[in-house]
Amino acid sequence: MRNAEATKERILEAALAEFSAHGIAGARVDRIAHAARCNKNLIYIYFEDKETLFTTVLRKHLMRIHEEQPFTPDDLPGFAAKVFDWAMANPDLMRLMAWSALEQQAKDKVERVAALEGKVAALTEAQNTGRVGTAFPPDFLLIAVMSLATAWSAASPIGSSLAPKATERPAALRESISEAVGLLANAGKGARAQVRSKKR
Amino acid sequence: MRNAEATKERILEAALAEFSAHGIAGARVDRIAHAARCNKNLIYIYFEDKETLFTTVLRKHLMRIHEEQPFTPDDLPGFAAKVFDWAMANPDLMRLMAWSALEQQAKDKVERVAALEGKVAALTEAQNTGRVGTAFPPDFLLIAVMSLATAWSAASPIGSSLAPKATERPAALRESISEAVGLLANAGKGARAQVRSKKR
Repeated sequence: MRNAEATKERILEAALAEFSAHGIAGARVDRIAHAARCNKNLIYIYFEDKETLFTTVLRKHLMRIHEEQPFTPDDLPGFAAKVFDWAMANPDLMRLMAWSALEQQAKDKVERVAALEGKVAALTEAQNTGRVGTAFPPDFLLIAVMSLATAWSAASPIGSSLAPKATERPAALRESISEAVGLLANAGKGARAQVRSKKR
Repeated sequence: MRNAEATKERILEAALAEFSAHGIAGARVDRIAHAARCNKNLIYIYFEDKETLFTTVLRKHLMRIHEEQPFTPDDLPGFAAKVFDWAMANPDLMRLMAWSALEQQAKDKVERVAALEGKVAALTEAQNTGRVGTAFPPDFLLIAVMSLATAWSAASPIGSSLAPKATERPAALRESISEAVGLLANAGKGARAQVRSKKR
């Protein structure tokens, strides 16, 4: 039994490398089997088919991201800096997310949308209590923060392609990202208080 | 001769659809030949190989983007709104750019980097003359603007996957994007003038 778990782990590890390099359509199950030193049929027994294996790998790592990176609506610049560090340190996973966007249907992304909704709710609460500015809708703000934090990662069709050298100076990038996110998060911060004082 | 040009056009059109759906590795030249109603060998004669055909299609449409969307460093919010409209109206091309980021080597992106450098130079000039704020380096500002403007497009592993419903209200999205870009572009706008007056 312990042996089976170890084999599954080796398969998941080999699958991450194969899917990251080639995507779902381009991945070859026999290459994964070879790298994991197991029989190809075992992969189908454990993980059904190639797309299910992909989803299992992506889900496993996304769960790890959510555990390692608690969402901090009161400190969006700090959250953005952590997402940036994570994205730059994990190009394989960023590529998985990009392949998923291109190759998977919306139905396979249900859990990720649910994770987003929890963050939007936390951000709405932070706006309602005046801890985050209200210039932008909470769902816009969250996508903007995530997009800025990952714009220079391996998953980005913008930063990684157009400004490959920018990643040579991560400290400066991290600082600019945090500052930009701070501007967006603070915009309209006094607005609610102003409305309140006008009502008096 | 006119016939050959018409055939080439049909091939490029069919290739756009095929590459957008399946990427470079996943695209099938015989499907492109079938859709373009031509002999498969003709595609190799005209375009060498599958990757060269991909690069030809992408290059053709990127040239069109640069013609249709003049860069306006003095009006970055307006530029962002135009990029947003363009990105939402052209999911096929946004997907081509995303496939390129995942499947192509840096050497194939030389022209796109060169196009970026022209914009960075224009932005630097706008910052030096006080028309754009200096809180952010010009190359950071440009990638941030492009990333925000395309974060909800079909190429984005963030917006398109996580917030598919946001695209149902494009006018609100466009307004928020412009406003966010305005904040970034104006940040540090008085800084240079302040430094100057301090020197007096």
